[in-house]
Amino acid sequence: MPASLQLSALPGIPLVAPGDDLPALIDASLRQSGLSLRAGDVVVVAQKVVSKAENRFVDLAAVEPSPRALALAQEIAKDPRLVEVILRESSRIVRARPGLLIVEHRLGFVMANAGVDQSNVGPQQRGQRVLLLPADPDASAARLRERLMMQHACDVAVIVSDSFGRAWRRGTIGTALGVAGMPALVDLRGQPDLFGRAMKVSTVALADQVASAAALLMGEAAEAAPVVLVRGLEWSQPPAPAQALVRTAEEDLFR
Amino acid sequence: MPASLQLSALPGIPLVAPGDDLPALIDASLRQSGLSLRAGDVVVVAQKVVSKAENRFVDLAAVEPSPRALALAQEIAKDPRLVEVILRESSRIVRARPGLLIVEHRLGFVMANAGVDQSNVGPQQRGQRVLLLPADPDASAARLRERLMMQHACDVAVIVSDSFGRAWRRGTIGTALGVAGMPALVDLRGQPDLFGRAMKVSTVALADQVASAAALLMGEAAEAAPVVLVRGLEWSQPPAPAQALVRTAEEDLFR
Repeated sequence: MPASLQLSALPGIPLVAPGDDLPALIDASLRQSGLSLRAGDVVVVAQKVVSKAENRFVDLAAVEPSPRALALAQEIAKDPRLVEVILRESSRIVRARPGLLIVEHRLGFVMANAGVDQSNVGPQQRGQRVLLLPADPDASAARLRERLMMQHACDVAVIVSDSFGRAWRRGTIGTALGVAGMPALVDLRGQPDLFGRAMKVSTVALADQVASAAALLMGEAAEAAPVVLVRGLEWSQPPAPAQALVRTAEEDLFR
Repeated sequence: MPASLQLSALPGIPLVAPGDDLPALIDASLRQSGLSLRAGDVVVVAQKVVSKAENRFVDLAAVEPSPRALALAQEIAKDPRLVEVILRESSRIVRARPGLLIVEHRLGFVMANAGVDQSNVGPQQRGQRVLLLPADPDASAARLRERLMMQHACDVAVIVSDSFGRAWRRGTIGTALGVAGMPALVDLRGQPDLFGRAMKVSTVALADQVASAAALLMGEAAEAAPVVLVRGLEWSQPPAPAQALVRTAEEDLFR
C-alpha cells in the first residue's frame, strides 16, 4: 500500500461541447499548471464532460414517447419524453415513485434516471435536451488513456466517474463508470491477514474508491473541476474494466 | 471546492490492544514522521483499532447460542456462537445464505455479519474471540477528536471508517461509521448549478467519500496503516455525525 496520495483538480478546463478534443483540453490544463503526467498516475474524468465531448445529447423535441413511457410518466409526474429516453437507456425499472425513477442501466449500473442528466446542459437548451451516459464508458476511458499516453509517453490509468445514490445510505458518492489501465476491482481472496489467516473479505472496489476520492475535488456539478489527477496509487493486479464492478443479481445479497 | 488534497498514512502505529491510548499512539506517529495536525485536517481511523482500544472483544467460549441462533447457524453453516453475537448486534436480518449473513446493525448500518470480525484478532485467539464495532462510533470519533484537538491545539475532524460491501456493485469501499467535527453529509438542495438551475441531486456523502479515499492507503487489513491524515478538504456546512448517513427504509428506493 502506498504511504501517501496527492490529488489535484486540473485548472482551467473550459465548458466542453460536442466534438471537443478532451485529451487536448486536459493536456493544455496540465501545461498551464506546470504539471506533467507520470507513470502510475490516474486521471479521473467526470462522466458529464466525456458525454458532452462524445455528443451524447438527445433533443427532447425529437423524442416520441411510447405508450409505456406515457403511462409511467403520468405515474411519476415526469416529462414523457424524458421517461422515454430513460427507458431506452434501461434494461429494467427497479423502483418508480413520483419524481424519482431508479433503473438498471443497459450497462448494468443501478442508478437514478439511467444517468440521463438535465442539469448543466446549458441555458439555451434547458428543458430541450438531455445528456446520456457515454455509450461505452470503458471504451471512452481506454480512448482517453491512449491519447494521454501518446502525448505524455508514460503509462497512466483513466477513470470515467459519476455520482451515484445507493441503497441503505444517504448521499451520493463518486463511482467508476469506465476504467482503463488499472484494476477496477482488486481480488484479495486467499491473501493472508496480518496473522497469516486467509482473509474472507475478498474484493476491493479500487476504482470506485478512487472515484470517490476525486469527487471530493470535483464538486457536485462536476464541471467546475471535471478532471482530477491522482498520484501515488499502487496496484499489482492486472487491469480490469469498470464492468467488473457490476454485480449480477445472482450473487447480490444486498439488493 | 479545494484544488488539491494530500493523504498520508501515519507510520509506525503498533498493533492496538484493549486499553491502549489511541490518541497517544497517533500523536507518537505524527511526531515520529515530523507531521503535525493543522486546522481543517481530517484524521481517518480504521474501526478495527478503535474497537480494539475500546476492548470490544467477545469471548466465544462465554456465548450461549439462543434457539434462534442455533437454527440460523445450521442454515448458513456458521458457528452458532458467532451467529448469536451477530444477532445481538443486529436489529434485523436482511439476507442469509450459507456462509454469509447480511443484517441491519442496531446502529442502522446494513452490512455483512453486523461488522463482527474474526480476522486480524491475533493468533492466540483464533476462533476464540471476535471483535464488535464500537458501541457508538460517532461518540468514539468525538472522543478521539477532543483528545487530538487538546494535544495539537487546532480544530480537526475525525472519521471512524470501515469497509462495506454494497448492493448492485462488487467490492468493498471505505465507509464512515463515526464522524466528528465535519458534516458527514452535505446538503446541496436548492444550490444553483453552473447555469443557475437548482440542482436536483441534493446530498453528497462527504464522510463516506473521505473514508473511501483513506481506504486507498489503509490496505484491506486496515491495520498495517490504520490511521490516515487527509489535508486540504473544505466544507461550509455544520458538523453532522455518521448517523446522518443512515437512510431510513421509508426514503430508500434502492433497497
